[in-house]
Amino acid sequence: MKHGRVVYQGQVLAVTESADGRVQLPDGSIVAETAVQWLPPMDFGTIFALGLNYADHAKEIAFNKAPEEPLVFLKGPNALNGHRCHTRRPADVTYMHFECELGVVIGKTCRNVKREDAYSVVAGYVTANDYAIRDYLENYYRPNLRVKNRDGATPVGPWLVDATDIADPMNLRLRSWVNGELKQDGNTADMVHSIPALIAHLSSMMTLNPGDLILTGTPDGVADSRVGDEIVTEIEGVGRLVNFIGGDELLSGH
Amino acid sequence: MKHGRVVYQGQVLAVTESADGRVQLPDGSIVAETAVQWLPPMDFGTIFALGLNYADHAKEIAFNKAPEEPLVFLKGPNALNGHRCHTRRPADVTYMHFECELGVVIGKTCRNVKREDAYSVVAGYVTANDYAIRDYLENYYRPNLRVKNRDGATPVGPWLVDATDIADPMNLRLRSWVNGELKQDGNTADMVHSIPALIAHLSSMMTLNPGDLILTGTPDGVADSRVGDEIVTEIEGVGRLVNFIGGDELLSGH
Repeated sequence: MKHGRVVYQGQVLAVTESADGRVQLPDGSIVAETAVQWLPPMDFGTIFALGLNYADHAKEIAFNKAPEEPLVFLKGPNALNGHRCHTRRPADVTYMHFECELGVVIGKTCRNVKREDAYSVVAGYVTANDYAIRDYLENYYRPNLRVKNRDGATPVGPWLVDATDIADPMNLRLRSWVNGELKQDGNTADMVHSIPALIAHLSSMMTLNPGDLILTGTPDGVADSRVGDEIVTEIEGVGRLVNFIGGDELLSGH
Repeated sequence: MKHGRVVYQGQVLAVTESADGRVQLPDGSIVAETAVQWLPPMDFGTIFALGLNYADHAKEIAFNKAPEEPLVFLKGPNALNGHRCHTRRPADVTYMHFECELGVVIGKTCRNVKREDAYSVVAGYVTANDYAIRDYLENYYRPNLRVKNRDGATPVGPWLVDATDIADPMNLRLRSWVNGELKQDGNTADMVHSIPALIAHLSSMMTLNPGDLILTGTPDGVADSRVGDEIVTEIEGVGRLVNFIGGDELLSGH
C-alpha cells in the first residue's frame, strides 16, 4: 500500500493511493493529486544522506573512485518538502543539482543489525530529490549546510510504499526529467554500498529508530535546475515526485 | 528560572531548581538530584554543533588557525543523554575527549536574523558535554558519525536556564573536571564566532525553530575519558553536568 499525507480543506489527512493512481481520502472519496497540498508522507526522525554512493556519480563530480566506507551526513527537518511543492533556488548560486534518491524508512528500533537481517527493520520506501547547491567552497565539516540543508531543498513523496510491496529494492530504476527531458536514468543495483550494508553500517554505530530515513545517494546525470523548471524524479514502484523551482518570492513566508 | 525533566516514580516530570539548588517536583516537594533520573531538559529539534569555535582549542587539535566561517555540523537525537547518566566508551577507541559546551536554545521561528536582534530569538541556555571520539580517520563528509554521533555521547543539562536569567552569555566561565581534577577552564568570551554571529549565520541559510539547539564549541583542555571516570562540566550560571563513563555493559539495553 502507498501512504501519503496531505492538507485538504484545512485538515492534515493521511491518504492512500487509489486503484486508479489518484488520492483516496479517509472518507473513501477519490480526488486528483492536484486537488490536495502534499506534505512529506510522515514526520521523519533522524535523516541520513549518502554521498557518492553510485560510482558513476562519484566520477561525474570529479572523484576518482567510489568511497570504501559509506559517506554519511545528517540533514535537518527544515530541508524537507512535499510533492508538487516549490523549492527555492537561492539568488546567489550557479549550480543547483537535482538528485533522485531512494529513501529507506526504518520501522523498528534496532542496533547492530546484520546485513542478512537488514530488511526486517525496513518499514518502506520513498522517492526523494535531494538538491545540492554546488557553488560554495566546502569547509572542514562537510557538507557545508549551505550545500545540503536549505529550507525545502529535499522534496520527499508523494508516497511511502510498504516494504512488502517492493520485491527487490536493490533493482529499481531511478529517473529524473527536467521540463520533460530525461536526465538521470540509473538503477539501485548500482549502489556502491547496498541497503543492507548501509543499515548494518549505521546500526553498528548508533541506534536506529522507527521513522529514521536513509537517503541512499544518486546516480549520474545530475544537472543544474533553474527558476521555472519542473523537475520530476521517479523510482519504479515507489513514486513519481514533481517539484518546481522558484526564486526569492518563496522567501515571503519567512 | 531553571527547568529540567526527570523520571520519578515512573513518571516523566517537568521540574525546576529549588531555592536551595535541589529539585522541585510539580507538587512542590523538594528532592535531591540523586533521587530522580534525569532526561535532557526538553525534546530538541535540529541540533547544530560547532567545530573549532575557540581559537585555543583549534590550535590544540593541530589546526593552525581558527576558521573564518563557522564550522557547523548536525547531530542526531540518539546522541543526547541526561545529567548523571552514563556514556559508553566504545571498546575499540583510544581517545574519547570530553568537551564542555554552552548550548543555545532557540525560542522563536526565525529566518535572516540580524546580529543585533539575535538574542530576541533565544529561549535559554544549557550545559552540554559533546564527547568526540578521535581515533577514526575522517572521511569526505566530516565529522564521521562515529566521531560525534554515538548513542548517549552528548549529555545535556541538568537545567535549561531562561535567557532572561543570563546577563551576558558571552562572558561565562566554562570548566571541566575529570575525577575532581580541573582540565578545562575557559570563557565564552573567547568564542571565535559569537552567539549573535552563529544565529545570524545559520538563519541566513535556513529557518530556525523553537527547540533547535546550537552547541557553540569547546575551549582547550580536552583530554581522554576512561571507563569509570566521573566527568563534570559546568557553565557559570547555567548548570553543573555530571557524567559517568561506562563500557560495554551499557550495550545491554540494545
